Amino acid sequence: MPVPSFTPVVAGLAETVPFVGPEAIARRSGVPVRARLGANESGFGPSPKVLAAMAEAAPLCWRYPDPESHALREALAARLGLGLDEVVIGEGIDGLMSLAVRLFIAPGDTVVTSLGAYPTLNYHVAGFGGRLECVPYRGAHEDTAALAVAARRTGARMVYLANPDNPMGSFWPAAEVLALLDALPGDCLLLLDEAYGETAPPGALPPVDAARPNLLRLRTFSKAYGLAGMRCGYAFGHARLIRAFERVRNHFGVNRQAQVAALAALGDTAHLDWAVGAIARACARIAAIAREAGLAPLPTATNFVAVDCGGDGAHALRVLEALARHGVFVRKPMAPGLDRCIRVSAGPDAELDILAAALPLALREAQGAA
Amino acid sequence: MPVPSFTPVVAGLAETVPFVGPEAIARRSGVPVRARLGANESGFGPSPKVLAAMAEAAPLCWRYPDPESHALREALAARLGLGLDEVVIGEGIDGLMSLAVRLFIAPGDTVVTSLGAYPTLNYHVAGFGGRLECVPYRGAHEDTAALAVAARRTGARMVYLANPDNPMGSFWPAAEVLALLDALPGDCLLLLDEAYGETAPPGALPPVDAARPNLLRLRTFSKAYGLAGMRCGYAFGHARLIRAFERVRNHFGVNRQAQVAALAALGDTAHLDWAVGAIARACARIAAIAREAGLAPLPTATNFVAVDCGGDGAHALRVLEALARHGVFVRKPMAPGLDRCIRVSAGPDAELDILAAALPLALREAQGAA
Repeated sequence: MPVPSFTPVVAGLAETVPFVGPEAIARRSGVPVRARLGANESGFGPSPKVLAAMAEAAPLCWRYPDPESHALREALAARLGLGLDEVVIGEGIDGLMSLAVRLFIAPGDTVVTSLGAYPTLNYHVAGFGGRLECVPYRGAHEDTAALAVAARRTGARMVYLANPDNPMGSFWPAAEVLALLDALPGDCLLLLDEAYGETAPPGALPPVDAARPNLLRLRTFSKAYGLAGMRCGYAFGHARLIRAFERVRNHFGVNRQAQVAALAALGDTAHLDWAVGAIARACARIAAIAREAGLAPLPTATNFVAVDCGGDGAHALRVLEALARHGVFVRKPMAPGLDRCIRVSAGPDAELDILAAALPLALREAQGAA
Repeated sequence: MPVPSFTPVVAGLAETVPFVGPEAIARRSGVPVRARLGANESGFGPSPKVLAAMAEAAPLCWRYPDPESHALREALAARLGLGLDEVVIGEGIDGLMSLAVRLFIAPGDTVVTSLGAYPTLNYHVAGFGGRLECVPYRGAHEDTAALAVAARRTGARMVYLANPDNPMGSFWPAAEVLALLDALPGDCLLLLDEAYGETAPPGALPPVDAARPNLLRLRTFSKAYGLAGMRCGYAFGHARLIRAFERVRNHFGVNRQAQVAALAALGDTAHLDWAVGAIARACARIAAIAREAGLAPLPTATNFVAVDCGGDGAHALRVLEALARHGVFVRKPMAPGLDRCIRVSAGPDAELDILAAALPLALREAQGAA
């Protein structure tokens, strides 16, 4: 009996997931998460004004969302100094990333990224039949010069760079990012992921400029704004690139409450400033907790700290697993060269207290299990 | 200067939108919407228990949603008598539809649908390079026998059927749907859109059965449940079909509040029963208002009424435009044979009062403009 066959691209894909959620980890292990420090969320939460706006809007959730996200897009365009057709809203950076890959990557096309960079990009590239060319990090940094060389060598149609970087927490000054852009062929798109833009040091983000025909930038309300659960991100760049999303996006896909929440979040700059400060203090405390336990925290431009566990990848994985048994959820990079680290997200003191108590125990257990 | 080129499929697409939202219509016309009766939403709103659950969960919106939507999926599977791997949650039916097309339709593959059926399906088929074969309605019904004939003739890989139907409001008994399924080749998927399943008469929905290898069914919380703004739908069917979504879906795409809202909605069957009753009464009143104005309402199995305006498509369009000038938002089918109708969504009496006052005026204006 014949059954419906998948497309050739889909037939070649694994049934996979880029990240297993903490809820699923807890369901499988039976250990409740006591300190949720692995998903680079903001445990400092959204602005109270966001919660008030959501509460006020909730009774209207029977209405479809505005498919143009007009109010939010207008506010973002004004903030960025861009036109309305230079900004598009999507279901988080992940959703926009999927669409960006779909727009530009046909089966067999090459995308250049860093070995160990954001796995969801790889998932979407594979999902549209693209070919990944992975360039090793140089220390804790994505190697911009090598990315450009690889793009030219492979005739890549897209290069991915996260600045600030995830999972290592490093950053490049804007000049370095623009040098990468200048080194790319004009028909190669630079997909610049600025998910951690709000915590970036001054000078890390290139000036906003929608004139570059091959630069698409992604930002989100999931990190410093504290709205990861609402799934709302945005892309901005040249109008030719942004308008193209109209050809493929799910127009009614951005939840109504998400639009309301993001608009309110954008308006409360005082809360954002406070949250960025709280994140910086939490990162400093994570670094201190790590040092106290004899580990080496890396500098960070993000809302997390990569902590070198001082051994190999297997050792860091044992540390992560031991932390999980203590109810502390963190993640870790898996690529060679980065995998000696665990990645600990900023969070409120109550959760960092749990980390501080658990880390020395986890290290002892990891050494004992070796 | 070269610029990034779109994929061959994307290069051939228009910058289009299947539906212009009422907010955009109001922005462009300058006329505020006084009666929102065009998007087949439920102005009767969600359950108060849904609003309570959303309020309780809102402070946790800084957390990413559970990518497995475990609690909601478990509740749906239990309700349907299915296994966990026979149900998948998505960003409304639109989002799931896009993924279903992506799974099965490669460039050049044929999808059979009805001429004038849900345009978002057509948008997604075009979006993945598929070819549409459109079968005319038979009266107010999608022509199931002709759909099967067209599928066999064209070697189609997918057939789309909405039961109950949108935009005409008709339905087929389950036996007719299963006869269509039996008439399809085993490798042709029947994509069965049951968005209006909650308002369907007894006997319209085939029994739940995940054993059929080529049947994928779509349902939503957007209609009778009153949660269109939250973007939450589900697909169910054979585990081989459902598991395949893991290969391509945006795992973290379903908003956290949407999962909370849908779970609470599913639990409040008393509210659903009340809403279905209120919808039926509103549809009866829309029919009476139409008859009073000398028009011919069609029977409905949905939350809207197709109203035959008694002329041609141009006349019905003039009626729609005149209603819009009075602040009454409705939609209309555009395909030949269906386009003599406008489509009026059920809503609370206050909005139907506005319709009742505006319709005779709009008819006079439409006749005057002819």
